[in-house]
Amino acid sequence: MTVKSRHDAEALDAADPLAPLRDQFDLPEGVIYLDGNSLGPPPRAALKRISETAKDHWGRDLIKSWNTAGWIDLPKRCGAKIAALIGADGDDVIVCDSTSVNIFKLASALIKGRGGALAYEHDEFPTDGYILQGLAAMSGAALLELNRPSPETAFADNVSVLIKSAVHYKTAVIADIPAWERAAEKAGAVIVWDLSHAGGVIDLNLKADGARYAVGCGYKYLNGGPGAPAYVYVEHDAANRLAQPLSGWMGHARAFEFAGDYAPAAGVKRFACGTPPILSMASLDAALEVYDGVDMSAVERKAKALGDIFLARAQRLGLDTVSPGIDERRGGHVSLKFADGYAVVQALIARGVIGDFRTPDLMRFGFAPLYLRYADIWDAADALEDIIKSESWRSPEFATRKAVI
Amino acid sequence: MTVKSRHDAEALDAADPLAPLRDQFDLPEGVIYLDGNSLGPPPRAALKRISETAKDHWGRDLIKSWNTAGWIDLPKRCGAKIAALIGADGDDVIVCDSTSVNIFKLASALIKGRGGALAYEHDEFPTDGYILQGLAAMSGAALLELNRPSPETAFADNVSVLIKSAVHYKTAVIADIPAWERAAEKAGAVIVWDLSHAGGVIDLNLKADGARYAVGCGYKYLNGGPGAPAYVYVEHDAANRLAQPLSGWMGHARAFEFAGDYAPAAGVKRFACGTPPILSMASLDAALEVYDGVDMSAVERKAKALGDIFLARAQRLGLDTVSPGIDERRGGHVSLKFADGYAVVQALIARGVIGDFRTPDLMRFGFAPLYLRYADIWDAADALEDIIKSESWRSPEFATRKAVI
Repeated sequence: MTVKSRHDAEALDAADPLAPLRDQFDLPEGVIYLDGNSLGPPPRAALKRISETAKDHWGRDLIKSWNTAGWIDLPKRCGAKIAALIGADGDDVIVCDSTSVNIFKLASALIKGRGGALAYEHDEFPTDGYILQGLAAMSGAALLELNRPSPETAFADNVSVLIKSAVHYKTAVIADIPAWERAAEKAGAVIVWDLSHAGGVIDLNLKADGARYAVGCGYKYLNGGPGAPAYVYVEHDAANRLAQPLSGWMGHARAFEFAGDYAPAAGVKRFACGTPPILSMASLDAALEVYDGVDMSAVERKAKALGDIFLARAQRLGLDTVSPGIDERRGGHVSLKFADGYAVVQALIARGVIGDFRTPDLMRFGFAPLYLRYADIWDAADALEDIIKSESWRSPEFATRKAVI
Repeated sequence: MTVKSRHDAEALDAADPLAPLRDQFDLPEGVIYLDGNSLGPPPRAALKRISETAKDHWGRDLIKSWNTAGWIDLPKRCGAKIAALIGADGDDVIVCDSTSVNIFKLASALIKGRGGALAYEHDEFPTDGYILQGLAAMSGAALLELNRPSPETAFADNVSVLIKSAVHYKTAVIADIPAWERAAEKAGAVIVWDLSHAGGVIDLNLKADGARYAVGCGYKYLNGGPGAPAYVYVEHDAANRLAQPLSGWMGHARAFEFAGDYAPAAGVKRFACGTPPILSMASLDAALEVYDGVDMSAVERKAKALGDIFLARAQRLGLDTVSPGIDERRGGHVSLKFADGYAVVQALIARGVIGDFRTPDLMRFGFAPLYLRYADIWDAADALEDIIKSESWRSPEFATRKAVI
């Protein structure tokens, strides 16, 4: 339906099967949080688990908690929960390190022996390119920055390993994963999918779509907490053929034998490296409980519907977008183009509507479906309309206020 | 003084200037914790900070906490606290990633261009060797495993980058850092010190001793919590000459400009990579407050004195040690050799005395001076004596009980 009033939005909330999930979050009063694509808010289960892990496990059982609280298996247990959200087999995902570190592991394992060039898109999330730059400098592999590649053009110049976001961090364009995978296979190349802005908000079906390698972030739509550890997905047989260079003891087949020689664990577990940050990982593990029994296609549909409401109203204000329009498939966020967007975003934040700004001129708003209401989006659009029409963003305080990350 | 009775031990406690620090820890009842060299117990300040970070910062200020709670500067702020404990300049330490990942960063940055071989000691903590194996396989650098090297022999076979523990994880032998550094300099080589079993328990003076590169662990003597992030020390000018391949966005000179090309931050900050796990890092940062105003030479002295009491009594039971003796300098732990050590350690744990076992036959006991009392060590030795003399460790339950990590 087209939402023409707050009343329409409230009607959608009343009929929303995801609406009860909001109660599982601890959200501050007076805030409409449209930045869950950058840092998700705390699920109550995560806060409870953090306290339990710190006070009861660390504090009471100390070192024994590696066994009694199951810390030692947490990376795989938590990985299995993420696998369910991205359409991977439960045993094929592990939680470890950061997205940046995991890109390095996967890209270096894949380029080794394979030859050819590493590649990433111009305007990709910066760290993806930075990591490939570091890897290329170290390994001597060729590196290409591709300008608006398509599945047909991307692999032309001997590209054998491409890093690509499933949802673009600025535009929210969703990649056609099956088409990209077919093109890669035809070219004898592989793709490492960066799911950071996709996991937990769009309906990913990696295995069915032919994707074998991915990394993703734990602190955006997955709500794992600030800097929550990231994850690696590698299809089992493919993992067993890969040697990743960050061969730390947690990826060893028998870590506690303290053998002199590294022997990789079977499957994706060989992508673990050092001792994981348990407090941060336990938070992520508990946060994922919110997804229990949730249909990811419903999540994607609601994210799109929320974004549509906001986008329609922004367009009526004459604001341009770089994101897919009302009739197109789109990830969980919408980016509006506005020269003085920085000040507008600060003015919105001052009114409790939290979005973010991406240089040079994008106002980015995330529509996380687990805790946002249709009426929230209507209200956020009201605030935007008021700020734009009144030009209150021109107040000098908003140009100089320190930005959120 | 030689401690001949519990009364003597109590007298030492009464005169101990570090004794009041124990109150800063949340220790379980009925436990004598001799495994703080593996996982330190929670300082009360860490538990408080974890709760504050989760509920107040993450929960209330959400994304804004990167600025308002200072998350963005936490890796350097926390690093400066560690710098004070290891004799480094405050600006030359950063907290990031795991020890394993940090060894990879430093070793790969150092071997690049330098040529020669990577090297580590036989019987070094396993992950140090595993990481160098991964790096050697990736980079083609030669790799040597050295058998009981001395400063005079270690650099013979064109070794240019040596990883070496400042305190050995099994024996607690303390390396003579100045002598090693002089030998390395003479050979045109460099040493990456692994401080995991040294930081926070021995009186390190890295800069004065000529050490320029080190990594270390946040969750042992530093009490940062399970899997707390690790740290990197690189002397400032040396850092500016190094390019490390894990060039993630947090190590960029201007991360939030989202530029296409990586440009390393000045100094050790370029060793940061992805977004750090804030909950785990905040815990470490608060845990380090226990060290405020504490004299590290007093800490080392007490660790040695505690270990001496335990070792003297173990030797009277006929137990052998692989650690330096009563009259030698020694790190914070003592390892006793005993064929059925596994069962003995389990029998001790059943009585509330927690140590650990390192394959094949070492019982390892850590003497963390911030929260252990001389009388605790006397009591732990009583328990050991009883278990050994009564042979109660022969009870079948102790052979099969699941070990702590």
